[in-house]
Amino acid sequence: MISTEKHINKVDTDKTVSLLTVTIIGTGLIGGSLGLVLKDRGLAKHVIAVDNKPENQQRALELGIADEVLPIKEAIAKSDLIVLAVPVDALHSLLPAILDEVQDQVVMDMGSTKESAIGLVADHPKRGRYVATHPMWGTEYSGPAAAVKTAFADKATVICDAENSDEDALRMVQEMYTAIGMHLIYMNATAHDLHAAYVSHISHITSFALANTVLEKEKEDEAIFELASGGFESTVRLAKSNPAMWVPIFKQNRENVLDVLNEHITQLRKFKSCLEKENYEYLQELIENANGIRRILK
Amino acid sequence: MISTEKHINKVDTDKTVSLLTVTIIGTGLIGGSLGLVLKDRGLAKHVIAVDNKPENQQRALELGIADEVLPIKEAIAKSDLIVLAVPVDALHSLLPAILDEVQDQVVMDMGSTKESAIGLVADHPKRGRYVATHPMWGTEYSGPAAAVKTAFADKATVICDAENSDEDALRMVQEMYTAIGMHLIYMNATAHDLHAAYVSHISHITSFALANTVLEKEKEDEAIFELASGGFESTVRLAKSNPAMWVPIFKQNRENVLDVLNEHITQLRKFKSCLEKENYEYLQELIENANGIRRILK
Repeated sequence: MISTEKHINKVDTDKTVSLLTVTIIGTGLIGGSLGLVLKDRGLAKHVIAVDNKPENQQRALELGIADEVLPIKEAIAKSDLIVLAVPVDALHSLLPAILDEVQDQVVMDMGSTKESAIGLVADHPKRGRYVATHPMWGTEYSGPAAAVKTAFADKATVICDAENSDEDALRMVQEMYTAIGMHLIYMNATAHDLHAAYVSHISHITSFALANTVLEKEKEDEAIFELASGGFESTVRLAKSNPAMWVPIFKQNRENVLDVLNEHITQLRKFKSCLEKENYEYLQELIENANGIRRILK
Repeated sequence: MISTEKHINKVDTDKTVSLLTVTIIGTGLIGGSLGLVLKDRGLAKHVIAVDNKPENQQRALELGIADEVLPIKEAIAKSDLIVLAVPVDALHSLLPAILDEVQDQVVMDMGSTKESAIGLVADHPKRGRYVATHPMWGTEYSGPAAAVKTAFADKATVICDAENSDEDALRMVQEMYTAIGMHLIYMNATAHDLHAAYVSHISHITSFALANTVLEKEKEDEAIFELASGGFESTVRLAKSNPAMWVPIFKQNRENVLDVLNEHITQLRKFKSCLEKENYEYLQELIENANGIRRILK
């Protein structure tokens, strides 16, 4: 189901990445970081920012995320590569309209859910110009000020349903991600959304719920602040994440997230039952089983 | 309930920390790290290791955790300060026996639960020689090889029921913790165990349960390995923690942990209900509420 080999051909495009004009739509954490990386390392000829918030437009220029800010139609007309780095609800409204506008430009998105966006443009005459991607990098912060130059390096990017993208479009996106230091993984959109629920979306739900647990039960902020050690911060930090990004992800990946969340509640109930029944042998087994994560996380 | 001021007097002991002979019982992550810090920075005259595992005794000497290894009785007789850094079940069997042995030596423990150990020796004639502490530092690793010199610095240590320790014993422990760069917080043992359930113990349960969820549902280890980003690692890393340490903690702090765990399951059910009913307005509210953790975690 997963391949890291397929489609990684030696890139043989007419234009190398450093000669591209790239438009980034959405200059928050993800789009802003991409702009910084491309500009900082001279990996694009020209970066154009599109953002519906005037304050973000200004910040994108100040922070060196983009060379200029343009309205979306002008930006598309001037670009070789158009990158959508918007929340996945905004992606749904923008992607078909952008494909309506393009001639031979390449359009890619960086969203955390893939099946619904891909389904939306499955029959679009310009479907081949679109490459669906999900770089596995992020932080709990949002907005242009959260963008960092060190983003993406050594992480994986998933490219979904690559066979439905035109070869030259796919190559351009492959070359861009490789240039910023990412390695490529290929899978279909259905598999992506399922795996993303396990390795990313559920972590956010548990973190939000843990924050709410502590905020509900622990009325002494000072106690948390003084006592919280690395372990607490580690499990709760994702709870700072922006709802404008996460509500649409949970909505679009609802069935997978519900499935994993149900399993997670079942697993927590096992711990609860061990404590209630004072069954410490089984508690030991549950923890030993959890230690199996060492196989995966070194 | 919490005070960071009380009892922090200018230390006025006969012996400064650097002149002490310190015995560390248990040379794992916590005791081993304390030995490294004391020896590396010349903060003790002599460090003696006591450990019931021969391989740990050997490692303690090799790693520079201690200057010598002795049987427990000899170690106690030679020491000014005896530090118990063992799992909290072992603490229960060792603490009364050690107090039986001491003359004017000081005994402290570094365990994650406090009420039960303190209760156990409440009426011991040498109760005053005992100082109950909990340094808020740890990692998911265990054993002497996990010990690090950078441990403890800039973190808090809780001292519980300080008024029941002799003044000179308390001062010695205060000076030792201050010398290794920790700041001191004072609370009673009941409050400590409650707060510890919120800011540490529940994080471990959620992490163990999340690991079990993913290991149960996601049969493709390769997919987790390739896709897992910082967020997943952050919420799951505590699941590597040692059951020999954590089962006794959950057992001793059972009622508080159950109380917080019940609340956590309730909070997760709210997320589940939002998704089932497609109530995205309430989902937004739940996440906005969770964002309140920003008040506490900067």
